Amino acid sequence: MQDRSAPIREGEARAGGSGPGGLAVGRPDIERASGRIAAWIRLTPVLEVEPETFGTPGSVTLKLECHQHTGSFKPRGAFNRILSNEVPDAGVIAASGGNFGLAVAYAASRLGHRAEVFVPESTPEVKVHRLRAYGANVSITGHFYAEALEAAEVRRADSGALWMHAFDQPEMVAGNGTVGSELDEQVGDLDTLLVAVGGAGLIGGIAAWFRGDPRVVGVETEGTASLAAALAHGAPVDTEIGGIAADSLGARRVGDIGFAIARRFVDRVTVVDDEAVKRAQRALWEDLRIVVEPGAAAPPAALLSGAYRPDEGERVGVLLCGANTDPRSI
Amino acid sequence: MQDRSAPIREGEARAGGSGPGGLAVGRPDIERASGRIAAWIRLTPVLEVEPETFGTPGSVTLKLECHQHTGSFKPRGAFNRILSNEVPDAGVIAASGGNFGLAVAYAASRLGHRAEVFVPESTPEVKVHRLRAYGANVSITGHFYAEALEAAEVRRADSGALWMHAFDQPEMVAGNGTVGSELDEQVGDLDTLLVAVGGAGLIGGIAAWFRGDPRVVGVETEGTASLAAALAHGAPVDTEIGGIAADSLGARRVGDIGFAIARRFVDRVTVVDDEAVKRAQRALWEDLRIVVEPGAAAPPAALLSGAYRPDEGERVGVLLCGANTDPRSI
Repeated sequence: MQDRSAPIREGEARAGGSGPGGLAVGRPDIERASGRIAAWIRLTPVLEVEPETFGTPGSVTLKLECHQHTGSFKPRGAFNRILSNEVPDAGVIAASGGNFGLAVAYAASRLGHRAEVFVPESTPEVKVHRLRAYGANVSITGHFYAEALEAAEVRRADSGALWMHAFDQPEMVAGNGTVGSELDEQVGDLDTLLVAVGGAGLIGGIAAWFRGDPRVVGVETEGTASLAAALAHGAPVDTEIGGIAADSLGARRVGDIGFAIARRFVDRVTVVDDEAVKRAQRALWEDLRIVVEPGAAAPPAALLSGAYRPDEGERVGVLLCGANTDPRSI
Repeated sequence: MQDRSAPIREGEARAGGSGPGGLAVGRPDIERASGRIAAWIRLTPVLEVEPETFGTPGSVTLKLECHQHTGSFKPRGAFNRILSNEVPDAGVIAASGGNFGLAVAYAASRLGHRAEVFVPESTPEVKVHRLRAYGANVSITGHFYAEALEAAEVRRADSGALWMHAFDQPEMVAGNGTVGSELDEQVGDLDTLLVAVGGAGLIGGIAAWFRGDPRVVGVETEGTASLAAALAHGAPVDTEIGGIAADSLGARRVGDIGFAIARRFVDRVTVVDDEAVKRAQRALWEDLRIVVEPGAAAPPAALLSGAYRPDEGERVGVLLCGANTDPRSI
């Protein structure tokens, strides 16, 4: 049976991109994305916190991307993808019951396009409701994500709508990379930036911007360690997905675009367990009154658990990339 | 019976201060406070949000003071008070089961002083626990706040500890005014700033900094409208306290220091109802993934409810001054 979770890419994704060594995404793409999406996204703030907060030798700078539209970084890529293409009357189409689906529905609505979003029957009613509140046409199909994805592909072949992939399209990676260029303007002197990894479309864009300075460290949970597996294997491979962060970081296999960038420009990948994630969520609330979802708590969990230990004098940044969780769960 | 909730002030509060026209607090006090407390407080971020967020003609700038230590602006005044005085071996003493008590306990602990905090029996166990976690010696006395206050005064006369008043001391007002000077450096071109009002120690400090530019607008809830009452009466008067924001804005009578500054430099006071506060809390979570307590939601409630309607082109700032609430209540 064909693996339907494998990346689906447009023709242009296969061509050599503007990145060094033929990588699909480089700084010029991110700069163009930044100009394209500026009117549609929030410039999210940074907050420097004292060493005691995470038990580090020095202070830590948090990038509060959790306050972005729809509660995650995903609209950056979604807006960039839509604004980079001729959108047919059929609008845009995606398969996602999570953060990406919300971003697609939101961006399409703001830009005056139709959006069709396919989700499996397991999608919580609250998420379906929110997708519809953003004006999306929601199709609930099949028991598992793979079935919703398959139905979306069939529909797309019929309607001709613009396909939106959650992470493995150059415009997604370049749009998400604007988190990096924006942070670079806000805080120019970081040594290290910790970033959560799902399908590698976020860390790919950020690493393509920074190119090793600051060094970008990926953080995954034990149940969503698809980039760690890919780096060990030398290529994206299917992994078992589970645990507390599966809904946002649970890409079974990282994208080719993000993987190629990560292999070149990501310093290392650190893995934390679900208990550390839970503790980090709790600490962010208790000490900072910040609510994040489990996936976004993985980078601070790496500091709190000692999975990543900064050196004396190392200036560390932590990206908090989403807050789509029930505040009652904190 | 003596009104024990009336402001208790040190001798120096009665003397003419550095403010214009003999006001107890002026810009030089706030500048000095800023230098004094800089190492101990967080520089809290600002976030510009689009007109749709609050239904205003233009964008709105949020000052996220909710991420301050202990979850409110209160440590600014507390640190300034302690750092401005010789602290006896007995340490500092206060009566408060709320944000101010937490700030006193935290500041004293960080500065290596003892703290005694008196709270009434009605104080929730979680707040007593948190006060003790910051190292405070907590005395639970009496059914009502007034009894805890009385016991604290008796104890203070005995121990000689430094008295910390929640709002009506010059160092409190000047320390809290650093929210204004800090915001001024971050965003120099606001026309209007909306600020929640409890005992007027926060709005007093902020208005003393801005002196009419931007104009400072106070926001109270129907159950905590002590500044509106004082301005109508021409002097601080006792008011009935109740409703959703009573725990943080529920000073029965505004302080003399804040009142004198407010009468001169606060443009107006707007009153919102509890339903509008609740809606604003919900909107801040839904649209921005920001959690605030009811009192801090009063200023955005003024925008959302139309109680304050900005003009076309008016640049509006909103202070979100605290988040000491149970996230499950949002």
